[in-house]
Amino acid sequence: MRLKLTIAYVGTQFKGWQVQDHAHYLAPRTVQAELEAVIGRIAGGPVRVHGSGRTDSGVHADGQVAHVDIPDEKAAIDWQRAINAQLAPDVAVLAAEPAPEDFHAQYSCLRKAYAYSLWLTRAYTPPKLRGFVWNTGELDLAAMDAAAAHFLGSHDFAAMQNIGTPLKSTVRTIYSLNRAADLNPDWSQYLIHWRVEADGFLKQMVRNIMGLLADVGRGKLAPDAVPAILNACDRRASPATAPPSGLTLAKVYY
Amino acid sequence: MRLKLTIAYVGTQFKGWQVQDHAHYLAPRTVQAELEAVIGRIAGGPVRVHGSGRTDSGVHADGQVAHVDIPDEKAAIDWQRAINAQLAPDVAVLAAEPAPEDFHAQYSCLRKAYAYSLWLTRAYTPPKLRGFVWNTGELDLAAMDAAAAHFLGSHDFAAMQNIGTPLKSTVRTIYSLNRAADLNPDWSQYLIHWRVEADGFLKQMVRNIMGLLADVGRGKLAPDAVPAILNACDRRASPATAPPSGLTLAKVYY
Repeated sequence: MRLKLTIAYVGTQFKGWQVQDHAHYLAPRTVQAELEAVIGRIAGGPVRVHGSGRTDSGVHADGQVAHVDIPDEKAAIDWQRAINAQLAPDVAVLAAEPAPEDFHAQYSCLRKAYAYSLWLTRAYTPPKLRGFVWNTGELDLAAMDAAAAHFLGSHDFAAMQNIGTPLKSTVRTIYSLNRAADLNPDWSQYLIHWRVEADGFLKQMVRNIMGLLADVGRGKLAPDAVPAILNACDRRASPATAPPSGLTLAKVYY
Repeated sequence: MRLKLTIAYVGTQFKGWQVQDHAHYLAPRTVQAELEAVIGRIAGGPVRVHGSGRTDSGVHADGQVAHVDIPDEKAAIDWQRAINAQLAPDVAVLAAEPAPEDFHAQYSCLRKAYAYSLWLTRAYTPPKLRGFVWNTGELDLAAMDAAAAHFLGSHDFAAMQNIGTPLKSTVRTIYSLNRAADLNPDWSQYLIHWRVEADGFLKQMVRNIMGLLADVGRGKLAPDAVPAILNACDRRASPATAPPSGLTLAKVYY
């Protein structure tokens, strides 16, 4: 039986999603490794958990998706409860559903949405938001909106890609990139969430876009500088990568 | 100079607000002790930080208030920045304002508001909410509303008080006790926040009220049983105390 899992985690204590090579008892924690260990114990033998894609060390997920093949002996809801009963407190299965045999968490994915949260005053960071925001101080949000518009549509995003596995193409399509104030009135003045949806993301692409937008918000870069930076296709010509703490994999669409 | 501090903390790693007696280098962490250590270092001598009241081990604060007397050598905003630069990540000063000499964080307090958060499905707890909710599973919210109405107004709340320092009076006035779904649409189905405002609270009074309301929500107790429980003035006749994790000191009014 193929099971589709929707998974949330707080990434702070994880060295990212993906199992580290040559894992042994001192290997850093990864979400994939902990899921495989727990599901393997329940299934009575080793399993492979395939995620929709990796997330970096310190990056969170509200809706990561993975698939796993397990013995057809329990209802999906019972798998969910059995897995959650054994997982560490910083990871949880939000939903477990039977999936068709040809469902693949990575290859069946149509698009993904990430959220990136900024905290806009240096006077303090709320303790509850530590590890979940990037405290940038005050930013010019209107300038950032103008810059964000240049990312929409299909572009070669090589300038927004950090070094990693070589890819056939670095062209991706961004469907939306916009921001909203937090809904909690205690925080809405300083807490904003950027949300970006695309057909796929290059390595650290969201964090590189946010690093660029923050430089625009600080007045270091004009919004109209974005097209030339993208066209240069040179990572070194673009501002620094934003920290992982503000980033959450929000949703994977199939 | 007397400074009024508004303080937020994540209580999970603290043994409550109040300095533990005979503190030494192995003493458990308390919010008051860490504030006194940091402010004393900046002030160049020992200081006493007076809070509006204690919070228990594991209880959070979004708006605890304290006062402290410090040398009149810096603007309040500089005190805030200097203190926040040295505090641990799970506590922060949200605001620092000069206060009149007769302002007292505890004795000048007119009323307080607490929030208590419940998570209503046992299928999972979102990792981001671990330590901030009580996962009760499904509850009958309408029955809880009916029970909550019996707490409004002035009552002898001895039945809702755990053993502590003897008090002259256990009569308190509850101005409001109601619930709202969380504003985040991803969570609003399962996450509810109770908010209670009163002129003062007895030891663990909010957690005892929540323990009783949860028993009503589970159908173990009828809403109309509340008046008799309160009238008995006997803690042992009332349901168990709710866990500290769901509780946050929301606001202190002066």
